[in-house]
Amino acid sequence: MIRVAVDAMGGDHAPAEIVKGAVAAVKKSREIQVMLIGQKELVLRELEKYPYPKDQVELVQATEVIETGEPPVNAIRKKKDSSIVVGMNLVKAGEADAFVSAGSSGAILVGGQVIVGRLKGVERPPFGALIPTEKGVSLLLDCGANVDSRPSHLVQFARMGSIYMEHVIGINRPRVGIVNIGAEEEKGNALVKETFPLLKECTDIHFTGSIEAREIPHGGADVIVCEAFTGNVILKLYEGTGAVLVGMIKKGLMSSLRSKVGAVLIKPALKDTLKAFDATQYGGAPMLGLKGLVVKTHGSARAGEICNSVLQCLTFKEQQINEKIKESLDAKEQAQENP
Amino acid sequence: MIRVAVDAMGGDHAPAEIVKGAVAAVKKSREIQVMLIGQKELVLRELEKYPYPKDQVELVQATEVIETGEPPVNAIRKKKDSSIVVGMNLVKAGEADAFVSAGSSGAILVGGQVIVGRLKGVERPPFGALIPTEKGVSLLLDCGANVDSRPSHLVQFARMGSIYMEHVIGINRPRVGIVNIGAEEEKGNALVKETFPLLKECTDIHFTGSIEAREIPHGGADVIVCEAFTGNVILKLYEGTGAVLVGMIKKGLMSSLRSKVGAVLIKPALKDTLKAFDATQYGGAPMLGLKGLVVKTHGSARAGEICNSVLQCLTFKEQQINEKIKESLDAKEQAQENP
Repeated sequence: MIRVAVDAMGGDHAPAEIVKGAVAAVKKSREIQVMLIGQKELVLRELEKYPYPKDQVELVQATEVIETGEPPVNAIRKKKDSSIVVGMNLVKAGEADAFVSAGSSGAILVGGQVIVGRLKGVERPPFGALIPTEKGVSLLLDCGANVDSRPSHLVQFARMGSIYMEHVIGINRPRVGIVNIGAEEEKGNALVKETFPLLKECTDIHFTGSIEAREIPHGGADVIVCEAFTGNVILKLYEGTGAVLVGMIKKGLMSSLRSKVGAVLIKPALKDTLKAFDATQYGGAPMLGLKGLVVKTHGSARAGEICNSVLQCLTFKEQQINEKIKESLDAKEQAQENP
Repeated sequence: MIRVAVDAMGGDHAPAEIVKGAVAAVKKSREIQVMLIGQKELVLRELEKYPYPKDQVELVQATEVIETGEPPVNAIRKKKDSSIVVGMNLVKAGEADAFVSAGSSGAILVGGQVIVGRLKGVERPPFGALIPTEKGVSLLLDCGANVDSRPSHLVQFARMGSIYMEHVIGINRPRVGIVNIGAEEEKGNALVKETFPLLKECTDIHFTGSIEAREIPHGGADVIVCEAFTGNVILKLYEGTGAVLVGMIKKGLMSSLRSKVGAVLIKPALKDTLKAFDATQYGGAPMLGLKGLVVKTHGSARAGEICNSVLQCLTFKEQQINEKIKESLDAKEQAQENP
């Protein structure tokens, strides 16, 4: 049995879509217990719309809500009774195994580090994002937790990301690439040049060298390692470009009668294609290296993404990802002590 | 009259498409004289395919070719008779006003700085790229010339980029944005935090603050300033994502008979849409702050892009962009001396 605290108040479509997604998850798996965190009355009103296994859903009161625009550090400190703080405290106390939220990224990042806390040995818990590619999905990390990283942080990202992709997503021997501006080892900025040889030395990951940004949508690596500023730029540009292109194509299709007729005919095929390029089917973005699991979904998440994110927690727990991360970091530490 | 040296040997479709594009440019404007640099025999064979005004085209011999994979510094030093070195030497000697090449980016960057040389006062000549947006086109710089930039470099990029967008592309009071991972001033890495207040102080540019990568394809700023590592990642991801999405959509359209019929109907509309998102119609990417103009086109450039790139040199010269850059930097220097 795994207990997942779900932030019922976070995201553009809270609480309706969040509650709907949580109910869908418990219906799919008897092994999940969901704690819906939020203003009880509001949450209950949504919950009553569905039949659901009562023993798998619990309501937890949290009177406050952290808004997207609020300065995160302040919000976490001041709003003790917000759904994010209450949910993370449940994880900290061991009353929940995981926390899923579509709320403020900043607050989730701060809360993850301050409330849930880092696993021993983890220098900087990165924020990973699953991004769709031509071939499937890649994990991009760090994509927003800590800017101005050091080489040793990037090496930990590579290790933790590999464990995640292998055991949660099921990719055998995931290829690890470091984001660079050329394929050759001597290319790059100071950070990349320092990190490259360290990654080459890692025997426990499958490092394949530099990955140019152009190769990311082609699925050029399974674990894409970079510093958080770069990662955040990649993540947001990726989403922005996709949205603009699809929007322009749709608009273009409405430009003449001929193309309108064509649009009706291609609709099912186009829908399938765009679905393959839709990150939400893989669940949310995990923050790795914390004492519990914290998963951030898109602010725009609907029930489907919430459901997948909750189910993802089950795999995370079953596969003992945190135990594997600890082992990996311990092994590294021992190797350094007894070279 | 403006004299443009064109690298007839650089790019995936050299010399055929390069020569074709150069001929198209001189046919469009009597004010352009083109010098085609390359292996004379090969170039002449292409040139003879077209009728063209003989007084506007000149052949210049260059026996060597710098390949894309060659280490740039070495290539520029060793291959003295390559089309890139010969062309840049013509600019240096004042025998050409501009140099256009679809060849090795690395060699063009090194050659631009080492052979053509910087304008007095320019710290680091950036590599600008015109990128298509929902609204038109933006200039992204630096997108590959110098990694690990300092704040003062970014301020110069903003100044030079503004002059370029206003006078070459014709955008009145171009909006300048600095790439950041949040809209607020306190966000960002160390470089952005240091640069932000400096840009705010500039009275000669229209600084609009941070731009998140998501807003780039929406045309959120006309001049997009960033450090070269980030810029290169943006440029390549932008091109890669567009290519993959369009490829997936085209493949999707071939998946059923119904969608195939639809595809035929939407083809003209789709073509128009994708054309609007095609950077090649604006010409190449200028390297700013050099004593002459150096323009890099895509390696995959065809005649149309080459033609536009050559015509772009005319505007650059007519608008006296380099003189304006010098004035702008001089004014800044004087202001610092007599505050």
